[in-house]
Amino acid sequence: MKFPDAYDKLRNWSTKLAHMGSAMALLHWDQSTQIPKNGMRGRADVIASLAGIRHGMATDPEIGNLLDIVTASPLTDDNLTPEAINIREWRRGYDRMCKIPQALAHELAHVSAEGQFVWQNARPDNDWGRFKPYLQRLLSLKQQEAECIGYVGEAYDALLDIYELDLTTARIEPIFRKLAPALADLTQRISSSMPRRNTEVEYGKYPIPDQRAFALMVAKEIGYDLDSGRLDASAHPFTTGIGPGDVRITTRYSEDYFNEGFFAVIHEAGHAIYHQGLPLEYWGTPFCSPASLGVNESQSRMWENFVARSAGFWKFFYPFAQEKFSALKDIGESRFLFSINKVNPSLIRVEADEVTYNLHVLFRFELELALMRGNLMIDDLPEAWNSKMDDYLGLRPRTYAEGVLQDVHWSGGAFGYFPTYTLGNIYAAQLIFKAEKDLGSLEERFAAGDYKSLLAWLRTHIHQQGRRYAPSDLILKITGEKLNADYLIRYLTSKYKALYEL
Amino acid sequence: MKFPDAYDKLRNWSTKLAHMGSAMALLHWDQSTQIPKNGMRGRADVIASLAGIRHGMATDPEIGNLLDIVTASPLTDDNLTPEAINIREWRRGYDRMCKIPQALAHELAHVSAEGQFVWQNARPDNDWGRFKPYLQRLLSLKQQEAECIGYVGEAYDALLDIYELDLTTARIEPIFRKLAPALADLTQRISSSMPRRNTEVEYGKYPIPDQRAFALMVAKEIGYDLDSGRLDASAHPFTTGIGPGDVRITTRYSEDYFNEGFFAVIHEAGHAIYHQGLPLEYWGTPFCSPASLGVNESQSRMWENFVARSAGFWKFFYPFAQEKFSALKDIGESRFLFSINKVNPSLIRVEADEVTYNLHVLFRFELELALMRGNLMIDDLPEAWNSKMDDYLGLRPRTYAEGVLQDVHWSGGAFGYFPTYTLGNIYAAQLIFKAEKDLGSLEERFAAGDYKSLLAWLRTHIHQQGRRYAPSDLILKITGEKLNADYLIRYLTSKYKALYEL
Repeated sequence: MKFPDAYDKLRNWSTKLAHMGSAMALLHWDQSTQIPKNGMRGRADVIASLAGIRHGMATDPEIGNLLDIVTASPLTDDNLTPEAINIREWRRGYDRMCKIPQALAHELAHVSAEGQFVWQNARPDNDWGRFKPYLQRLLSLKQQEAECIGYVGEAYDALLDIYELDLTTARIEPIFRKLAPALADLTQRISSSMPRRNTEVEYGKYPIPDQRAFALMVAKEIGYDLDSGRLDASAHPFTTGIGPGDVRITTRYSEDYFNEGFFAVIHEAGHAIYHQGLPLEYWGTPFCSPASLGVNESQSRMWENFVARSAGFWKFFYPFAQEKFSALKDIGESRFLFSINKVNPSLIRVEADEVTYNLHVLFRFELELALMRGNLMIDDLPEAWNSKMDDYLGLRPRTYAEGVLQDVHWSGGAFGYFPTYTLGNIYAAQLIFKAEKDLGSLEERFAAGDYKSLLAWLRTHIHQQGRRYAPSDLILKITGEKLNADYLIRYLTSKYKALYEL
Repeated sequence: MKFPDAYDKLRNWSTKLAHMGSAMALLHWDQSTQIPKNGMRGRADVIASLAGIRHGMATDPEIGNLLDIVTASPLTDDNLTPEAINIREWRRGYDRMCKIPQALAHELAHVSAEGQFVWQNARPDNDWGRFKPYLQRLLSLKQQEAECIGYVGEAYDALLDIYELDLTTARIEPIFRKLAPALADLTQRISSSMPRRNTEVEYGKYPIPDQRAFALMVAKEIGYDLDSGRLDASAHPFTTGIGPGDVRITTRYSEDYFNEGFFAVIHEAGHAIYHQGLPLEYWGTPFCSPASLGVNESQSRMWENFVARSAGFWKFFYPFAQEKFSALKDIGESRFLFSINKVNPSLIRVEADEVTYNLHVLFRFELELALMRGNLMIDDLPEAWNSKMDDYLGLRPRTYAEGVLQDVHWSGGAFGYFPTYTLGNIYAAQLIFKAEKDLGSLEERFAAGDYKSLLAWLRTHIHQQGRRYAPSDLILKITGEKLNADYLIRYLTSKYKALYEL
């Protein structure tokens, strides 16, 4: 077989895998938004079956032969054409998957599913003992997986690489080490300046249909195409790409708290806008994918925090908000702006503000690194968690549920995932800085209702690039600099100095 | 390999096929009810990919070996245990599928999809010439398929059997021949008695949220479990079984016409109630399936016509309807009852009443039989259609769209499907007669709000039987009689004699 035939067969295989992915995404979405009560009981089995079938297709030995053909006869010397990118990514994904013995893959899938299920009940029951054996088992399986995949530096790197291509402990640790004291210091200064103003204005009466209408209006205005998406309610907000013209978002509303529903919509719209801007003519191939989890997170965080919590943004949108919500009628714009930007160290990551959020991530990174290295035993994890929490945020969980049991990630075996959240923030700050250099003051544009300029900049530099570059190369190419946490530190310090008059 | 292992492997295979079916059903449902506009463009490809993958799994050669093992070593002499039923149905389905060469299966799938697409546009354009070559091609492919499957009597039987197990032309033709003149005569007598009363009360203002609430209340009352289902709006009403606790229905509302939305809900609820009453502990295997399309249709028609258009039913529900809809406030119950039971020969099958509906089906059966036999050429089909329409219903289509282009079935290659509609009516009449013998006057039960008795009777005799019996055996077992159209003729004659005072 010659190159063109082999490439076509691979593209066809890749598209069929993507179609199975579409079906699985829809099954998940439906399970979270539409399913009747009794439909739940069979749904997990359906998704597991499709995952198994998909895994069989993904590791089909014939694919190895086709990959050998296309890698032996390169189409062109340019390794950044869509075709070259796809071949590179197919090769990488296939080789990694084939390195994991079927028995291990099967056990991982099985224990992850079970672990998540046990965690779901152990958390509300505050029952660490019930969850512990699963976490122990998952850690051991992930250590085995890392050995199968292989690594240069250390085992944890093999897991980091799953979520953020080419990321290593050696690369991320110094960056995180620099970030930690700067954020801890900023948090400390903010905390000691409080309470300065009473600004709980985001608590009040916010009727859900009005929240939905307002959030949709804003999401549309910043660039989320509702002809290629939709907004529903679910227990946990998420974005799911079901097809080339079908990227759906969800949120969770609270009738008496504005922030929860609104900022989740903008966060998810940030992901969705990225998906909608990918090179869709290559849908079904790796080229038409976000560059990485971290870059994907940079888009959601950028729209949620850098844009939708900025003064310029509310200069434009606050009159609409006041018109929609009677609770805001007598609240001045600056009071509202302060209230949605309050910094308040708390125990739960998903409720954390822009500044302290990263501290939650940083100590989770340290904990899972120690676990993978064997420097920390599962038995000692709850206490290690609590003492890190105390070190970084000055708070001590009173229960397992408030501490080590709070996140879903480890229960599904996702070690190495947390760092991508803070990476997203670092990328976002670095990118926004460059965008502002190219476009001039963004605050002014936001205040004038111009979100198209930033969107167009992101489309060109990030969205349309798909998975062309590894994330570190992408950042370097756009900003002319390596990953640099200084931008995030500078952005947060300057923003919160002004807000808190530090 | 021994029997138990082989059986377990087959059950596992069957369940995985069912899981793929669940995903495909959800993709279809979503496409009809929830999908954003631009999601449409990729959806057909996703469904086609899953269908292809599922077909590969269904015809896996290893399954043939497993079937040989389980059929060679019967578990027990009782051939009506769930296991024996599953083996029988797996064998039948697998053997039939393997008889069709892959090239033919592929071409059929391809031309059917294209044919449906062309038909969708040809019908509104009244363009028979554009659709004709596809119909010609589909007929020829279905003739080839019939030859591959094989038959005793004639080629058409091989197609009938796809939709209604064991049905043959020789068995159905005398029954239809008896039905046709009786219905034509009844229609004639009704028509010549008209117009007797002005009763267009079903036209008026029926707000859609009220229609939805009322229809849901009734559907629940007759036994549709909404914890295991839901109701949405779509262009064409349908029922879809997505999982063991998830059977969804849709309807189409018209703001100013009560019948359209309401009776579609009851019709689909009839299908859904059947699905919800199957032996669900065997979900994923053939035993947990409707006995046939005809029996499935008997359930929808029974609830829609025999129950929900009866005097007893409205004796109970009319006060609720009057309370809900101001349009009915000053309309007496008997006037309403007459209006929803009007008989009026018309050109379009899906808009036909209870009496004339079967005449539409009967001449389609004659036409497709003649096509399969080679006694009628595609070129002559439009004129043959129009003259049959004239013979049976005294009307002549003025356009192709009103005539030969009106139904979707043939455009997808579904020759042999139409008879199951009238079979459903015949089954329903025969079953209701027996139910009444066992339970006493159903009208009285309906008037008293008792729908549980009929439901329980159907659960025992039909729903819980799943696919245990061939449909002809099922009817014989329940009623002690072979299929007999007299019950339908008697039911319609007596009902409409009373309504029209003939």
